[in-house]
Amino acid sequence: MPRTATNGSRPCELGPALYLATRYSWPGSGSLKMLASASGDQTVKVWDASSGQDLNTLKGHTAQIVSVVFNPDGTRLASASDDSTVRVWDAMSGRQLLTLKEHTAPVATVAFSPDGKRLASASWDQLLKLWDATSGHEILSLNGHTSKVYGVAFSPDGTHLATASNDQTVRVWDATPRP
Amino acid sequence: MPRTATNGSRPCELGPALYLATRYSWPGSGSLKMLASASGDQTVKVWDASSGQDLNTLKGHTAQIVSVVFNPDGTRLASASDDSTVRVWDAMSGRQLLTLKEHTAPVATVAFSPDGKRLASASWDQLLKLWDATSGHEILSLNGHTSKVYGVAFSPDGTHLATASNDQTVRVWDATPRP
Repeated sequence: MPRTATNGSRPCELGPALYLATRYSWPGSGSLKMLASASGDQTVKVWDASSGQDLNTLKGHTAQIVSVVFNPDGTRLASASDDSTVRVWDAMSGRQLLTLKEHTAPVATVAFSPDGKRLASASWDQLLKLWDATSGHEILSLNGHTSKVYGVAFSPDGTHLATASNDQTVRVWDATPRP
Repeated sequence: MPRTATNGSRPCELGPALYLATRYSWPGSGSLKMLASASGDQTVKVWDASSGQDLNTLKGHTAQIVSVVFNPDGTRLASASDDSTVRVWDAMSGRQLLTLKEHTAPVATVAFSPDGKRLASASWDQLLKLWDATSGHEILSLNGHTSKVYGVAFSPDGTHLATASNDQTVRVWDATPRP
């Protein structure tokens, strides 16, 4: 029999400001347990997951945000939005560090490379883009999909990328640019 | 200037069978690089990411699949579907091991605990459920959200869960059942 248990659960409500939080991450480093949520209200919120305190509201996107991820050491956040941009933020201060603007349609998702040095973004413009996560320089723009790209993942060693698209294919890409 | 590079990219197309692949994972262990994709065609496909070979097609769900994740050691997969079930599969053989049936509405996402022993599922039925990933036993059913729950994540130490809901809140839960 299933049971609806409220013992064993002490819900800590973190605030009513979100229209729709679709993604969040929870980095393992540091004593502060941060939680980030992305919302249809065009903001990312960063929370102290222990106290429920709202640490920062990251403003800049001009359409709903559909993906937010921490970098591996938890110091930065990247967000992807229907406004066709990817933005990189300082997780503690909430300061916007980069705006990546080369996509021409909503960005569906964003991922950091395992070493945190690169970012990959997948967009409805059918492109997979690879970025330098520090400078914001576009390293690669990979075409091949014939419809919206919805998902992206790095291989554990960071040398390859996999994408999933509405064109009914999954593709694997070499993520190392050649001279 | 952005460039659309095809040098540096050798796309390896993994097959035309998918309607919509929305999630996939890529485990780090072992010499075989596996990739799993979830699809609107009601199947999960497991691929050899190096060769593009289709290793297995996991059949059982009766509606579109919206989330698929590997457990930490890459031996199992869990999938969440609009058919209101979570299913657990052997990643290599493709055999279905468990069907978790207690949700009463589409399951939006599923996550393994960091130690791989538990599964958390978030559903449109407004519930967060915690499961034993080996036996399929329902450990906790946590209510509190007042609308669809779209996202779930374990804290790195596995003691807490965070959820994101269409009710405009993010909540943090104690994931350790008390006697």
